[in-house]
Amino acid sequence: MSTERDSELSFIRPDVRAMTGYTPGEQPRGGRVVKLNTNENPYPPSPLVLEAMVSAASDAVRLYPDPMASDLCRRAAEVYGVAADQVLAGNGSDELLMMVLRACVGPGDAVAYPVPTYSLYETLVQIVGGRAVSVPFDRDFVLPVDGVVELAGKVTFVCNPNAPSGTVTPLAVIDEMASRLKGLLVVDEAYADFGTSTATELIERHPNVVVLRTFSKSFSLAGLRVGLAFGPQPVMAELAKVKDSYNLNRVSIAAATAALNDLDWMRANVEKVRRTRARLTEELTKLDYDVLPSDTNFVLARQPGINQEAVYKMLRAAGVLVRYFDLPALRDALRITVGTDEEIDALLAALRAAR
Amino acid sequence: MSTERDSELSFIRPDVRAMTGYTPGEQPRGGRVVKLNTNENPYPPSPLVLEAMVSAASDAVRLYPDPMASDLCRRAAEVYGVAADQVLAGNGSDELLMMVLRACVGPGDAVAYPVPTYSLYETLVQIVGGRAVSVPFDRDFVLPVDGVVELAGKVTFVCNPNAPSGTVTPLAVIDEMASRLKGLLVVDEAYADFGTSTATELIERHPNVVVLRTFSKSFSLAGLRVGLAFGPQPVMAELAKVKDSYNLNRVSIAAATAALNDLDWMRANVEKVRRTRARLTEELTKLDYDVLPSDTNFVLARQPGINQEAVYKMLRAAGVLVRYFDLPALRDALRITVGTDEEIDALLAALRAAR
Repeated sequence: MSTERDSELSFIRPDVRAMTGYTPGEQPRGGRVVKLNTNENPYPPSPLVLEAMVSAASDAVRLYPDPMASDLCRRAAEVYGVAADQVLAGNGSDELLMMVLRACVGPGDAVAYPVPTYSLYETLVQIVGGRAVSVPFDRDFVLPVDGVVELAGKVTFVCNPNAPSGTVTPLAVIDEMASRLKGLLVVDEAYADFGTSTATELIERHPNVVVLRTFSKSFSLAGLRVGLAFGPQPVMAELAKVKDSYNLNRVSIAAATAALNDLDWMRANVEKVRRTRARLTEELTKLDYDVLPSDTNFVLARQPGINQEAVYKMLRAAGVLVRYFDLPALRDALRITVGTDEEIDALLAALRAAR
Repeated sequence: MSTERDSELSFIRPDVRAMTGYTPGEQPRGGRVVKLNTNENPYPPSPLVLEAMVSAASDAVRLYPDPMASDLCRRAAEVYGVAADQVLAGNGSDELLMMVLRACVGPGDAVAYPVPTYSLYETLVQIVGGRAVSVPFDRDFVLPVDGVVELAGKVTFVCNPNAPSGTVTPLAVIDEMASRLKGLLVVDEAYADFGTSTATELIERHPNVVVLRTFSKSFSLAGLRVGLAFGPQPVMAELAKVKDSYNLNRVSIAAATAALNDLDWMRANVEKVRRTRARLTEELTKLDYDVLPSDTNFVLARQPGINQEAVYKMLRAAGVLVRYFDLPALRDALRITVGTDEEIDALLAALRAAR
């Protein structure tokens, strides 16, 4: 960077200038690609959702949306068994993560999480000027409770089920951790619908627990950006102060509300994904991969000690996108989204052809 | 606040706990209300926009949106005569304001603006832990250039045309101010389409100028949350680092792009608003209001020294919502959105009836 440019950007925070920024998973524009790299749902959303979207395409878009997305929060409260004032909606759960950090984290405050996990956490902590502190999961992705508690984060993130491992930490462990933590525990349940466990009930027993959900995965709505936060009312009230004033648009509010009115559709899609996940796990095992038990819509497939970058590139060349992470703990792994059976067949065929 | 609750919220930043949060303008839920309080466009968006929204209601919503909204930015670059890498799209220009603050402002850094202006600025500065510093406009809302420059903000916001005054500062003055400021100058042009002036060309001459636009006003898309930032490429690259990873959803991207493909529609609506604005100004003057010259889709009507809260309440009781600001400089004023001619007739009738 030239001196001239340096002085031109003197109004940018030095820590931001030093940042590289988050790299989202690749989004190919058209072409015949088997897209198993960003954990999208291979099945479409409920017809009720698409109907709600069409209805929202009306002259009423000239008006601001409801800043609190009240209709959505009310319906979410019914579905998840909480009070409406224990719910907050976000422009994706990514925005809710940012709201938590904005509300809690000042310069240098510690934000704790076990790693490897959702890589956006680190970026968001950098943005708010916090200090990311972490402890490693063990090789089987068992949560190091003592280690996490000792980090004493102002905020602690636990992605549960975890990405990119797909593994889940039992509710009792989360419960115990919430009791031991003085800071806020955020249980990021983006993938929970593909498993069996949720920590939502903890918000009734702990003043410091927030649970996040997203419509991007199980509800097939990654393109609409809607997430939900559940937490004690006093915490939700503080988070609401730091959200963008009109954070959700009219279409997303209507679509997410409609999605919650057709849970059967979502559950049927989840069931299909689970069946395919079991088959994928079995076939990858036959191909000499260790596959961690997954409670999500992806699997982490590892060949201990064998760098998978070449396999990732070979798959890419064959038109199959999966996720490879260039990190010490993950170089021997591929994260593979559970697609349709046809997509998984294409993946497996490409892997077999390369043997 | 009880001690127990205090200790329960110990993980929330003290400055956030002390905040009251931003109060958006009232959004009545149904009923026959003449809504002249939040500067929405009284006319619908282009049919092309609604068509694009319906097209976006497809199975593709299961996929993440383009994180950089490239189609929209490319089209915006054509329309506004800048390069595509000088454009960034936001979830409303509110999100772009926040991105600027995230990128530039550390704890205690000064953020400067003349007041009264868009009240969200103060809230956003509080959220990032900055220090809001301001100088008053004079009674005619002439920008106090020296005063603003002396505040030496890391970031300086100039809402131009200004809200809630509706007045505009000439381009030459903005240009001069940009030269004198060491920090970043953000020209918030949410209402520029209703006037005649824009500072977009300044991004070619100044390394420290960012111009913001919104689709909420002239394009009748407040409900979809889309804003644009124009600025030098190096600045845009820094802002991109701190944006939410997928900040715009698929529908908003498609709708805003379509809106830019039907500028004639927007301009025809703007022309109608301008004609009604002239009539409203004339009639309010007859009713003993001083009305500032407006380059926006609202007017600030004042009766010097006469508190307008009672008038605001009377109008409200008559089913006409306008905006009253309980601030020393604005208590003798009402901010009235330029609605349809019928809506303005209803407002004027209510005002006349109350005399």
